[in-house]
Amino acid sequence: QDFKCNSKSIYLRYFCISFHYVWPLPQIVIPSPERYQLKPQSFSFGYRRNLDTKHSCSVLDAAFKRYFSILFPGYTYGDENEVFTLTISLDRHDCQGYPNQDSSERYKLSVFAGQASLNAETVWGSLRGLETFSQLVYQDDFGSYYVNKTEIEDYPQFNYRGILLDTSRHYLPVQAILKTLDAMAYSKFNVFHWHLVDDPSFPYQSQKFPDLSNKGAFHPVTHIYTQSDVRRVISYARMRGIRVLPEFDSPGHTKSWGKGQSELLTPCYRGDTPSGTFGPVNPTLPSTYQFMASLLKEVASVFPDPYIHLGGDEVDFSCWRSNPYIRAFMHKMGFGLDFSKLEAFYIEKIVNITSVLRKTSIVWQDVFDYHERRKFLSVVEVWKQGCYLCEVRRVVKAGLRVILASPWYLDQPGPTHNWARYYNVWPLAFKGTEKQKSLVIGGEVCLWGEYVDATNLSPRLWPRASAAAERLWSNERQTSCVERAFPRLQEFRCKLLRRGIQAEPLYVGHCKHEYQSGIF
Amino acid sequence: QDFKCNSKSIYLRYFCISFHYVWPLPQIVIPSPERYQLKPQSFSFGYRRNLDTKHSCSVLDAAFKRYFSILFPGYTYGDENEVFTLTISLDRHDCQGYPNQDSSERYKLSVFAGQASLNAETVWGSLRGLETFSQLVYQDDFGSYYVNKTEIEDYPQFNYRGILLDTSRHYLPVQAILKTLDAMAYSKFNVFHWHLVDDPSFPYQSQKFPDLSNKGAFHPVTHIYTQSDVRRVISYARMRGIRVLPEFDSPGHTKSWGKGQSELLTPCYRGDTPSGTFGPVNPTLPSTYQFMASLLKEVASVFPDPYIHLGGDEVDFSCWRSNPYIRAFMHKMGFGLDFSKLEAFYIEKIVNITSVLRKTSIVWQDVFDYHERRKFLSVVEVWKQGCYLCEVRRVVKAGLRVILASPWYLDQPGPTHNWARYYNVWPLAFKGTEKQKSLVIGGEVCLWGEYVDATNLSPRLWPRASAAAERLWSNERQTSCVERAFPRLQEFRCKLLRRGIQAEPLYVGHCKHEYQSGIF
Repeated sequence: QDFKCNSKSIYLRYFCISFHYVWPLPQIVIPSPERYQLKPQSFSFGYRRNLDTKHSCSVLDAAFKRYFSILFPGYTYGDENEVFTLTISLDRHDCQGYPNQDSSERYKLSVFAGQASLNAETVWGSLRGLETFSQLVYQDDFGSYYVNKTEIEDYPQFNYRGILLDTSRHYLPVQAILKTLDAMAYSKFNVFHWHLVDDPSFPYQSQKFPDLSNKGAFHPVTHIYTQSDVRRVISYARMRGIRVLPEFDSPGHTKSWGKGQSELLTPCYRGDTPSGTFGPVNPTLPSTYQFMASLLKEVASVFPDPYIHLGGDEVDFSCWRSNPYIRAFMHKMGFGLDFSKLEAFYIEKIVNITSVLRKTSIVWQDVFDYHERRKFLSVVEVWKQGCYLCEVRRVVKAGLRVILASPWYLDQPGPTHNWARYYNVWPLAFKGTEKQKSLVIGGEVCLWGEYVDATNLSPRLWPRASAAAERLWSNERQTSCVERAFPRLQEFRCKLLRRGIQAEPLYVGHCKHEYQSGIF
Repeated sequence: QDFKCNSKSIYLRYFCISFHYVWPLPQIVIPSPERYQLKPQSFSFGYRRNLDTKHSCSVLDAAFKRYFSILFPGYTYGDENEVFTLTISLDRHDCQGYPNQDSSERYKLSVFAGQASLNAETVWGSLRGLETFSQLVYQDDFGSYYVNKTEIEDYPQFNYRGILLDTSRHYLPVQAILKTLDAMAYSKFNVFHWHLVDDPSFPYQSQKFPDLSNKGAFHPVTHIYTQSDVRRVISYARMRGIRVLPEFDSPGHTKSWGKGQSELLTPCYRGDTPSGTFGPVNPTLPSTYQFMASLLKEVASVFPDPYIHLGGDEVDFSCWRSNPYIRAFMHKMGFGLDFSKLEAFYIEKIVNITSVLRKTSIVWQDVFDYHERRKFLSVVEVWKQGCYLCEVRRVVKAGLRVILASPWYLDQPGPTHNWARYYNVWPLAFKGTEKQKSLVIGGEVCLWGEYVDATNLSPRLWPRASAAAERLWSNERQTSCVERAFPRLQEFRCKLLRRGIQAEPLYVGHCKHEYQSGIF
């Protein structure tokens, strides 16, 4: 990279006037040393009186209350004596819907004496602007609140900015998920990729197949997500402009499915007899596809997002190879000994089922790697280590869209200063046309669950995930310098503590308000 | 090590009768399949009516309440209808004192139908026995409580089993320290080594030198330990049989001291003029020793433990070398260019001051390494990586006592399965006489503060520190097998969760009661 710390830039101006930082960095900021005092008693949010927003908006009404208590902890929102008003206007009145891959998150924020105006194309953009505004407000040593005259124009670099939580290897209480959604909104993440089920447990309580969690969850009552839990998560996420992307990974990673759905998994053989263990989903039986169609139909109706993640990673062929019926099917289909052809056969059918349900499928890069007819696919998530940009390039050259996860496997513990590793990632630093680069729709932080549960989720995720958040939101030319990002990230981490997020320290030092709650 | 997992041992018996595990493993356990139901409403603790315990004991009265709510969460202790009584007898009625290096922690616990008896030489031993009893009680699937007929004779392998917390690199709220003391008692740790002050901050509020924290703490009001905070920590620890060992590390690691105590630190020079920066404590001025004597006199009276940790590690000579007055002093003393002689000169004076205060000093291994007149020293803490047992051997050959810390630097993050590394430590595996080995008084887990504060302290410490706890308490021949320890440690980790300790997971799986509190 040639745009490094020594480049002259807009930053110098910020440092000179002790600008109060916003994380992730907005695209265009015009700061000013002029500051205005804010009084909790006389601060209010309001709608611009125009035709489009004549009705109030439930998403924003809730956001007003939330941000008021973030701005002024300990005060209650009551809009009397309005002396300072933040007025919101929306180009489109889309309060009833869900955010999606194409939602504009663009906003314009202007702070003047006695007022601020926030304009956005969509309600989701206005949520991003509210977050930015909340980070502009600061307290002096005597506790008075201030905000500086500021103009900001902002939009994300990438539309897909996700965090994956794995609720199969360890069960995460719903509260832990909601808390993560809070923290995601603070870093402007917009996709919660819910890796719901996997080998160890199946905590999703299906309407059609209740035995999947009855028999496949760690516990059929205390370690499951009911339909009402799932609705709660989706609604909580929506209120913060966050999509919920469900993943039902198959044909591998499905051991727990087999407990509640007999004949779904492949019986492994030792010699001529079944060994009693089971392998991946059995791709040779029509009943498999009937079951998958039925399950995915339910998933498609429970989760409003137009995308479903179908997994498809790390399929172990040894069990398929051991099974004489599978081998016979291979022979009949003319697959020879190439089990990846069988795998492709299965995934194509599942992708088809998903298309019929009018959902777009996302798969892990494995599917792209072995699949010969790649046009079948839509979005590929690149996760393997090594030259991940080589893989990104291969996928976009095939005309498919990419989500990049490889550099952001945050379940790996490490000293917090590793945040710089997650910051120094350049998703577009490969040779390709503009059109190819536009196929990189974003990136994702993966917090796999082998060593993570509610006890360590927050400090492992925050503030390291925020480093990825800035990479995915901000202009990379303005955010290429780790040294300059460090004090900003330190300040942001203190803001997270102040908001009750258990974000671990970056290095020696302190925050005005240390983490207190949750100790007892 | 030749005593590995394949050795036949007492364990097989445990597995056969589904013994409910105790961590750390007691020295002698005679389990039985016979079990008795316990009812919260009719369970009580009592004193054996004999001459020695005719007065009640405040330490035990508090422990009874604590362990009742650990045994039966949600119930309140009221001793009506005693159907099952745990009766305690003490050989010595030492309830008013403090635990110390020579306190016996030996206890004998017998559980029979309708009663249990716990005999100990000291009140501290009886606390260890109560902890063991609390781990023997379990619930069936319907919530009923049970305890099996059991006989246990137990005592620690090492008398010093410590945890170091660093409150200088990050400030830890008092509540976080108290919570750690709770968890320490669950793993039978008995020393809280309080690394109070260091370069970054001086949070100890001195009575005689209030400017040390006024100017040297991160914040003079919110980021300090008042005298009352310190008393609270000492008393809370005592109630759990835990000593508090204060460390005031000098002459290095003292940058923060210089802010509130002028002329204490050495002015560094650039050429012929002071550079404006400061180095280690200035060992050439009489005022230094007056100050240190006065400070240590206060420390000796505030902290009841007969030991004080004087630090003495990692002294950087470059500043001393730059200072012409220091060089002149070196010349006058005949030290030549050997600054370690100057260092030894300083430490000897500080050790002397400590002896006059009737306290025994502990130093980091650096002091032993450079000090020629080693008989001056008493206890050496070995912390450097590499062949730490070589160093242990050198220290005991010099006739000094050793605390081993090198293998237990838990501030290093790593996957939780690293617990095995902390478990597979053999402090006595060096060539030496029995008498030399007896000089190894124990070991210590160090949780340095560069990357640790209240947000991540608990999951970083637990359950990994518990691996060290078993090594320091239990018979190494019975606890040499990681594979056998794993399920026991998993069960113990679930107990920690149940008690509100944010202990991170060892691997994929679940606990009946997942961590809930502290999420919001």
